[in-house]
Amino acid sequence: MKLMRIGPKGQERPAVLVEGRVLDVASHVVDFDRTFFEEDGLGLLREMIAAGQLAELDVRGRRIGAPVARPGQIFCIGINYADHASESSLTIPPEPLVFGKSAHTVVGPNDDVHLPRGSTKTDWEVEIGVIIGRRARYLGSPEDALDCIAGLAISHDVSEREWQLERHGQWIKGKSFETFNPLGPWLVTLDEIADLGALTLELDVNGEARQRGSSKDMVFDIPYLIYYLSQFTVLEPGDLINTGTPAGVGLGMAPPQYLKANDVVDLRIGGLGAQRQSIVPAP
Amino acid sequence: MKLMRIGPKGQERPAVLVEGRVLDVASHVVDFDRTFFEEDGLGLLREMIAAGQLAELDVRGRRIGAPVARPGQIFCIGINYADHASESSLTIPPEPLVFGKSAHTVVGPNDDVHLPRGSTKTDWEVEIGVIIGRRARYLGSPEDALDCIAGLAISHDVSEREWQLERHGQWIKGKSFETFNPLGPWLVTLDEIADLGALTLELDVNGEARQRGSSKDMVFDIPYLIYYLSQFTVLEPGDLINTGTPAGVGLGMAPPQYLKANDVVDLRIGGLGAQRQSIVPAP
Repeated sequence: MKLMRIGPKGQERPAVLVEGRVLDVASHVVDFDRTFFEEDGLGLLREMIAAGQLAELDVRGRRIGAPVARPGQIFCIGINYADHASESSLTIPPEPLVFGKSAHTVVGPNDDVHLPRGSTKTDWEVEIGVIIGRRARYLGSPEDALDCIAGLAISHDVSEREWQLERHGQWIKGKSFETFNPLGPWLVTLDEIADLGALTLELDVNGEARQRGSSKDMVFDIPYLIYYLSQFTVLEPGDLINTGTPAGVGLGMAPPQYLKANDVVDLRIGGLGAQRQSIVPAP
Repeated sequence: MKLMRIGPKGQERPAVLVEGRVLDVASHVVDFDRTFFEEDGLGLLREMIAAGQLAELDVRGRRIGAPVARPGQIFCIGINYADHASESSLTIPPEPLVFGKSAHTVVGPNDDVHLPRGSTKTDWEVEIGVIIGRRARYLGSPEDALDCIAGLAISHDVSEREWQLERHGQWIKGKSFETFNPLGPWLVTLDEIADLGALTLELDVNGEARQRGSSKDMVFDIPYLIYYLSQFTVLEPGDLINTGTPAGVGLGMAPPQYLKANDVVDLRIGGLGAQRQSIVPAP
């Protein structure tokens, strides 16, 4: 099953994509948020789909929003692909490197990304986003983590390298600018993912290939990351985990290359769909 | 005006404390959350108080919750008092050091704090918490920040030093354990604060003085912090900013001392009330 949210920013309508048809669920579900996942909304939707009760929604020309309404928290994993560690001149950490990102950064998968005022080092990072479906707290093993995942989505962890690396502090500064987390187009439930360890990740800038990776190269895999986070925090339904980016970011190019106004960025992850953003100056 | 939330966890009822009386506002206000502040709930409450329309609420023996329901985001400032920098063997940063903390950590001011499983380095940090009342984005000057503040509250930025400093990554790990952000008892609106630069901060452990500080010793003052954050992120109504802690944390003692089960921590900030937490093992 694929969850989507359709409509203008702040007025998105929840829907599901089933066998190529978008079905309206707004009369059954308030939104895809913490309460939805807590109250087994996914189970409810499966029943309604099986019963054939849902009407089709005409989505032609309509905006796609992020598939989750306002995550309660975003955790990000750094240096989680060996090839990206190498290009960043960083060593692979012995346990996951975790940093924060403002939960207000989430936008739709094809919304404009705002180039921060004065920025000359805005960079791209295609990532597998994990959306939590069930509370995760002191999990006993990575195997227990799978039950806590609602699904996956393409997550663009846009990063301003000057604020991330040169402004005296922690990475959260460079990660938290407005519009810096396009998410979607879908939340794809785990039952539709054949192999968490074989997802291809691709990112192009203006049609030129920049990132080509696979989740098989992750240092810490997705179940381990959820298990690990649950040892020092409580993950709640609707939270988002950005699981790291493969090689090919602008910072790693020689010389480094960064995004500028009017650039177009395309992202694709196998089974999770595609995103396209235009880069525009922050108003 | 002082905002409070009264009742069991997850079922708190919004109220205001005016001249020693707690007045019920639950029939006028859903909760003290992002929507409340966005829709000028503070202005509405002022009108209702002036009109004498509110009934008194009997709060004897009832739990006090955090004065804000689920902040959308928590930003924390590190090393923002010169004396604390010195005891931590850290130099004062040339611009604010910012780190993240899970927004799910917020609990009531007198709720138990859970000692993380296996932790031997859980530490205390009394801080002035700033609650945002109006969207702050690319503010032009620190003076503009005052209009964006709803009010202040005591915020206990509980910190697990092993996960913060020894676990390969950023500070967010040691800051994000469950119950690690007691907040309240009140959100005190700015009009009740005579001088943002002269607030006394005190913290005792088992009745022994540990932290004694004043906001006059802040490296970056509150208006500057809000202005600074607004340059790289958008602060939304209901967000919480923890503005740093003065000297006297357990990490800075010789030898270091940390919290253990059955300890009792008292916090006081001039004009913002008092908190008391018992330390209990995480269940």
